[in-house]
Amino acid sequence: MRKLQIIAEPGRQEVTTVCEFDAPTERVFKVCTDPALIPKWWGPSAYTTTVDKMEPHTGGSWRFVQKDADGNEFAFRGVYHSIDADNLQTVSTFEFEGMPGHVLMETVTYEEYDGKTTMRSTSVFQTVADRDGMMQTGMEDGAQESMDRLTALL
Amino acid sequence: MRKLQIIAEPGRQEVTTVCEFDAPTERVFKVCTDPALIPKWWGPSAYTTTVDKMEPHTGGSWRFVQKDADGNEFAFRGVYHSIDADNLQTVSTFEFEGMPGHVLMETVTYEEYDGKTTMRSTSVFQTVADRDGMMQTGMEDGAQESMDRLTALL
Repeated sequence: MRKLQIIAEPGRQEVTTVCEFDAPTERVFKVCTDPALIPKWWGPSAYTTTVDKMEPHTGGSWRFVQKDADGNEFAFRGVYHSIDADNLQTVSTFEFEGMPGHVLMETVTYEEYDGKTTMRSTSVFQTVADRDGMMQTGMEDGAQESMDRLTALL
Repeated sequence: MRKLQIIAEPGRQEVTTVCEFDAPTERVFKVCTDPALIPKWWGPSAYTTTVDKMEPHTGGSWRFVQKDADGNEFAFRGVYHSIDADNLQTVSTFEFEGMPGHVLMETVTYEEYDGKTTMRSTSVFQTVADRDGMMQTGMEDGAQESMDRLTALL
């Protein structure tokens, strides 16, 4: 599995992750925006992920529920500011329902070179403290595992 | 008219504006989220503002069109991640259609003290360059005029 690159400079309120896939952009974009495939790659494999709602179009909403082995549930939700298949860019919001009011905005781009896709995700947080808090939740391991699962799926 | 406070530290990708109104929070919140009142205060008075769409609830979308004296149109749009009347907080996205793909996320809170309301808006941008670009568009004057118009309306 390819190593996910994570960029989080001290004192900034953003995190960027960069990952490369051996597949054309259209395919990666399609897989990432397909509600039926979310449970197969989104989040760590130790959790089951259920898509409560996913409307992958500009103005749509989404809500995913993760369940651990003990049955504890963790829900996440947001809205799609834009899903732009022509320009291969999505902009959406993200909130963990366990920390209401703390929201981030994620911009994802897909660039193709030589049949491979570089997927770049930049999340901006309301504060540096929120960004640092997210980094401390084990977000790096979680993101790496999601990308590994996505690679296997592609 | 009360001076709007604008905080934009160098090198950061956020802008915070703070304004105080002689009205209780419920009233300020209600006025700010009322589609019928947007044309009366949103943006500079030299422009006419038309609400093309405004669904002021969690998951809703909005789109406003400004027209100048020469008939030039400028459109803005976004989605409401959350409109939380209980906690007096809204989180929404904002995009000037003339610069597609450049999106900011705005968090607005309303705090009451002694019958007065402090409205605080923090916008986070995708990049520092986007934030600096917005500051150079005359955003300060525009924001001040919106707040003056809102004060008069309240």
